[in-house]
Amino acid sequence: MADSSTSNPPAPEKVPEQTPEQATEQGDAPKGPSKSELKKRAKEEEKKKKAAEKAAKQAELAQQQAAAEVDFATENYGKLPLNQSQTRTGRERAQIRSFSERAGETVLFRARVHNSRAQGNKMVFLNLRQRTDSVQGLLIVTPEKVSKQMVKWTAGIASEAIVLVEGTIEKVQEPIKSASVSDVEVHISKIWLVSGIDGRLPFSVDDANRPETEAEASDAQFNRVLLETRLNNRVIDLRTQTNQAIFKLQGAIGDFFRDYLKEHGFLEIHSPKLQGAATESGASVFKVSYFKGNAFLAQSPQLAKQMAIAADFERVYEIGPVFRAEDSNTHRHLTEFMGLDLEMTIEEHYHEVMETLDGMLVSIFRGLRDQYKNEIDVVRKQFPADEFKWREGPEGTLKFTFKEAVDLLVEDGVNREVLDDINTENERRLGKIVKAKYDTDYYIIDKFPMALRPFYTMPDPEDPTLSNSYDFFMRGEEILSGAQRIHDPSLLCEKMRSKGVDPDSMKPYVDAFRMGCAPHGGGGIGLERVLMLFLKLNNVRRASLFPRDPKRLEP
Amino acid sequence: MADSSTSNPPAPEKVPEQTPEQATEQGDAPKGPSKSELKKRAKEEEKKKKAAEKAAKQAELAQQQAAAEVDFATENYGKLPLNQSQTRTGRERAQIRSFSERAGETVLFRARVHNSRAQGNKMVFLNLRQRTDSVQGLLIVTPEKVSKQMVKWTAGIASEAIVLVEGTIEKVQEPIKSASVSDVEVHISKIWLVSGIDGRLPFSVDDANRPETEAEASDAQFNRVLLETRLNNRVIDLRTQTNQAIFKLQGAIGDFFRDYLKEHGFLEIHSPKLQGAATESGASVFKVSYFKGNAFLAQSPQLAKQMAIAADFERVYEIGPVFRAEDSNTHRHLTEFMGLDLEMTIEEHYHEVMETLDGMLVSIFRGLRDQYKNEIDVVRKQFPADEFKWREGPEGTLKFTFKEAVDLLVEDGVNREVLDDINTENERRLGKIVKAKYDTDYYIIDKFPMALRPFYTMPDPEDPTLSNSYDFFMRGEEILSGAQRIHDPSLLCEKMRSKGVDPDSMKPYVDAFRMGCAPHGGGGIGLERVLMLFLKLNNVRRASLFPRDPKRLEP
Repeated sequence: MADSSTSNPPAPEKVPEQTPEQATEQGDAPKGPSKSELKKRAKEEEKKKKAAEKAAKQAELAQQQAAAEVDFATENYGKLPLNQSQTRTGRERAQIRSFSERAGETVLFRARVHNSRAQGNKMVFLNLRQRTDSVQGLLIVTPEKVSKQMVKWTAGIASEAIVLVEGTIEKVQEPIKSASVSDVEVHISKIWLVSGIDGRLPFSVDDANRPETEAEASDAQFNRVLLETRLNNRVIDLRTQTNQAIFKLQGAIGDFFRDYLKEHGFLEIHSPKLQGAATESGASVFKVSYFKGNAFLAQSPQLAKQMAIAADFERVYEIGPVFRAEDSNTHRHLTEFMGLDLEMTIEEHYHEVMETLDGMLVSIFRGLRDQYKNEIDVVRKQFPADEFKWREGPEGTLKFTFKEAVDLLVEDGVNREVLDDINTENERRLGKIVKAKYDTDYYIIDKFPMALRPFYTMPDPEDPTLSNSYDFFMRGEEILSGAQRIHDPSLLCEKMRSKGVDPDSMKPYVDAFRMGCAPHGGGGIGLERVLMLFLKLNNVRRASLFPRDPKRLEP
Repeated sequence: MADSSTSNPPAPEKVPEQTPEQATEQGDAPKGPSKSELKKRAKEEEKKKKAAEKAAKQAELAQQQAAAEVDFATENYGKLPLNQSQTRTGRERAQIRSFSERAGETVLFRARVHNSRAQGNKMVFLNLRQRTDSVQGLLIVTPEKVSKQMVKWTAGIASEAIVLVEGTIEKVQEPIKSASVSDVEVHISKIWLVSGIDGRLPFSVDDANRPETEAEASDAQFNRVLLETRLNNRVIDLRTQTNQAIFKLQGAIGDFFRDYLKEHGFLEIHSPKLQGAATESGASVFKVSYFKGNAFLAQSPQLAKQMAIAADFERVYEIGPVFRAEDSNTHRHLTEFMGLDLEMTIEEHYHEVMETLDGMLVSIFRGLRDQYKNEIDVVRKQFPADEFKWREGPEGTLKFTFKEAVDLLVEDGVNREVLDDINTENERRLGKIVKAKYDTDYYIIDKFPMALRPFYTMPDPEDPTLSNSYDFFMRGEEILSGAQRIHDPSLLCEKMRSKGVDPDSMKPYVDAFRMGCAPHGGGGIGLERVLMLFLKLNNVRRASLFPRDPKRLEP
């Protein structure tokens, strides 16, 4: 390390310690001395002289001692200057997860102080964390290397501060339970503060990472961190192992979605979220001030992806935000969430689309199960859940018609008269029935009544009260809605009018079909819902990095 | 094909043709008959009778002829009923691009009628198109198979209608210039209309696909389709080979971006576009009505991605829409575009970030050049351009400081006094200087003056008037802006105040740094600009599926 002197901090200022012996004495002035008095004084002078000599000797000794206690380790610790990219050594910054394989090596690494514990004034243990990995660090007073002052300073570093540590990786006999890398520890030789804590943490990362069951127990000895508090302080909350794993899984879902679709000839598109008209369905849309007029936020890429089909792209997908201005304050509604949408041409039958969506979802489930076991296990520690089950093999995904689903509910005791639509409560009930009967958490309901679907849904060819549409369910909650669309402009206009939509208000959309459009269909999944239900997080906000709901626009 | 009879159309209604012989004659009524008159009449009666007999015979013959001309091919053509997914045969629908290898086979395929040409009343040529592929189809009157009526009906199909065709692939001697698959043609045996055209096409796909130079020539014999007209009718415009290629390339850029970053340990995140406060910089933001209050559309994921760093995600990227409420009506501004953003921790120096961004961009350039040659060539036919050049090899990407860039401009004759900032015009001029001197279309300018950058930019450690920030350029236009960010809350608040931003208005953002945050930096590229400049499309709207600008919210 050629220029370590420049990257090391300037030595912190240290106030020299005052020894009590340095305080001076002052005698009283005599009034009039007698002979005996003079003798006495001479004796005392002698005494004082000796005392002074003794004191001087003691002072000298003390000074020698003090010199011995001067901090010899100032180069090895302290606060780093603000990183403004002054130097560049190119020295490797190590990853904690590799430490088991690197016993004996001296490494330099940046980590958070997860917590620390001083033992007397000569030793301090640090739990050092990088994302989901942690290791024990140990700092012990060592002649010429680690001073008492260095140990004291290190013991004072706040939890969640970021430090740069140099140390040697050493094997340990007893596994260290508190660290994810438990077979080694780091014997620290240098430690610097990269970023401190300004104020008090709203809660500890440990408290935030505790199993829900443990925190909920009536005799809980720990602080339970409420969801609201977590979300208000999301930056701290996201540092938990659970959240690090959740968002790794969220990224993985996007990857599996794209991989499957690219393999099946789909093209990624990006459609505008700013729309000229409030469109599509009854769901309310957000209004935007747009220069001298107004725009509206797209509640899905529905219109754009259908127009992409009319423009010959054949098979398209999009991952993008969708906006819903519904004042729904539930565990599963957000005002902004990630839509994973696709649309494709149909050659013969809309089940081609349904099967593509099914294949895509199953490839996500498989990918998560097979490639992300560790992350799922980490999440399960905080959110215990049965493993998510789906049907594989030749029989494939379980499918019902809407009518069959209603029959299942009626059999289970639900009054048929309330089942024109299946509400959230009955959806969940159906999920339980299906789970008990077929041992699957994942199924499809096909052939929804036309009355329940948006105007662009293709009616069934035999029964016009039914439609070529489907919903997909995970653990009894809807995660995907889709259908064959109407590609014929006159039928489309007819259906628009019957649902109270003026075709003129969506002219560019209707015109797309006047210029020739292949039969097509599609669907969209809510990324956060899939993540929530796969992991059973019980609240969709936990599956969103910075969730938005009617009452939350921050952070 | 077991149930072809059900997937075939019902025979279209055909009006029986009237033969002229079927018209009847009426004689005048006589006043008073004489003998000779009667004789004459008898003779005439006889004559008439014979004529009637003759006529009857002729009628019979005509009927026989008519019977012979009854359309024997009704099962082989016509309008298909609306596809409501009635049946499913599973029969393969072929792709035109595979036809060269399938000579001799009978195939079924869906295609657009790019155009058609009848030759007499016995033959019609069709140019059939699937995206960027096309093939010649030929329909000839053939006893018992292809009737005159079938040829006439087929010749009447409008351009851009969608048909389902069955035919045999046959080798041809002379290459067919008008088709992309030129060594075979399809001898059509069946043809059905899947989706027709309702109204007139605003322009032909051929006109829309013509080279700009050709259309611009003063003696142009073709219709030039103006950009405005194209965008108003984007669905037709997007069907050109050029646009099919452009959006395939757009998708590829996203893929290369993700691939590079995933390989380098980045996690994909999705940050909310709805923000509680109008934030970040001077750029205006769109205001949204949010229940009883207001929200604002994020002008970049800047704040969220920095908070993700404070939340320990270490390296993150996002592909998502960003919104700019600037009333800029130029060739390179959109009010909504796709931001490809990344943010990462810094160990020692912000050049770590700059190099990652550089590596990412170069991997995109390489990927496009090496894997998408065909698409680039297709675009180049319409938009001629020099190949995009960048520096490879050990010297790497060309880099200047801002000061060096200013010097280059001054050398070239620009007055130094106007160069506190480098405006668009001088950016382009610099691009030309650099191209002439270094033969590269791609370079980086580092060390921008602090005054030109947003409040969150980290100052240079030696000269506080400079900053640890950089812009990247393609063909003399900025495509990426980035910097090291301030991770220290007190310096951040100081800089906010100095730029007139109240730290309290962005409390969750500032608080993220109070809880400890590693040094970090990042940058963002505009997807459409990269695409426009790589291909030299000259207008960013051509690189956006459905572009949005201050004057355009549709389609």
